[in-house]
Amino acid sequence: MNPTTITAPPGTPFIDVVREFEASRTKVFRASTDPELVARWLGPRELEMDLHSYDARTGGSYGYVHRDAAGNEYAFRGVFHTVVPEERIVQTFEYAGAPDVVSVDCTTYEDLGGRTRLHTHTVFPSVEARDAALASGMEHGIVESMDRLDEVAGGDLPLLPEDDD
Amino acid sequence: MNPTTITAPPGTPFIDVVREFEASRTKVFRASTDPELVARWLGPRELEMDLHSYDARTGGSYGYVHRDAAGNEYAFRGVFHTVVPEERIVQTFEYAGAPDVVSVDCTTYEDLGGRTRLHTHTVFPSVEARDAALASGMEHGIVESMDRLDEVAGGDLPLLPEDDD
Repeated sequence: MNPTTITAPPGTPFIDVVREFEASRTKVFRASTDPELVARWLGPRELEMDLHSYDARTGGSYGYVHRDAAGNEYAFRGVFHTVVPEERIVQTFEYAGAPDVVSVDCTTYEDLGGRTRLHTHTVFPSVEARDAALASGMEHGIVESMDRLDEVAGGDLPLLPEDDD
Repeated sequence: MNPTTITAPPGTPFIDVVREFEASRTKVFRASTDPELVARWLGPRELEMDLHSYDARTGGSYGYVHRDAAGNEYAFRGVFHTVVPEERIVQTFEYAGAPDVVSVDCTTYEDLGGRTRLHTHTVFPSVEARDAALASGMEHGIVESMDRLDEVAGGDLPLLPEDDD
């Protein structure tokens, strides 16, 4: 597995995540936006995923619930400000357990020649909200999500008519 | 006119705007969300407003163009992450002249007993982007928008069936 680099400078509301994938940008982007594929990697492995919606286009919305073995539920939702296929996604993010703390993720997909670099820049409404999110163990969820995305994007994806890779 | 207080601490990506209105929260909120009313106050006075859409509900989108006397156009768009009537609006914001710089505004409406305090907390994706926005003269636009909103909210608004003020 490739490493996932998480950067969160002290005293800022920012988190940056960088990860390279041994899969084409076409596949990484599709795995990042197709609801059936997203449901297979978004979140840590130990949680059950209930993806209510994932309408990954500019102006679309999404929502999902993670459920642990004890039945505790963790709900998330947001809207897509920008979706440029294979290039960029800007979306809001809110965890129901921290209501009204809305962060924004800007994710870019860089073609490394058959391989892909994903970079997500996240900004929180305050330094304190960023620190609370980090303290909640989000790093574990990010690293496992990236590893699982690698498995999905690197596997056999259903071919679409426009595929050229 | 009541003063508009704009706070932008150096070295942060935040801008806070606080303004009180001599109008009820019902009226201020309606003037903030009804497209025909929004078109009457959003932006500085010297620009013509072309409001393409303003669907102020959770998951909705908006877009508008400001045009100056020379015909120069300034386009803006975003999505509404949260709209809780008379309480809170969280929305993204992007100026086409600074593409991919997406900020988030969280606006709360506080009932002061017939009067209303509006507070908008904005966060940019970087300190540099925040500083560039300030340098572009956005403070003038904010202050004039708040003054114009005061005029609209304090005027005779069309009554709606649910009105109780």
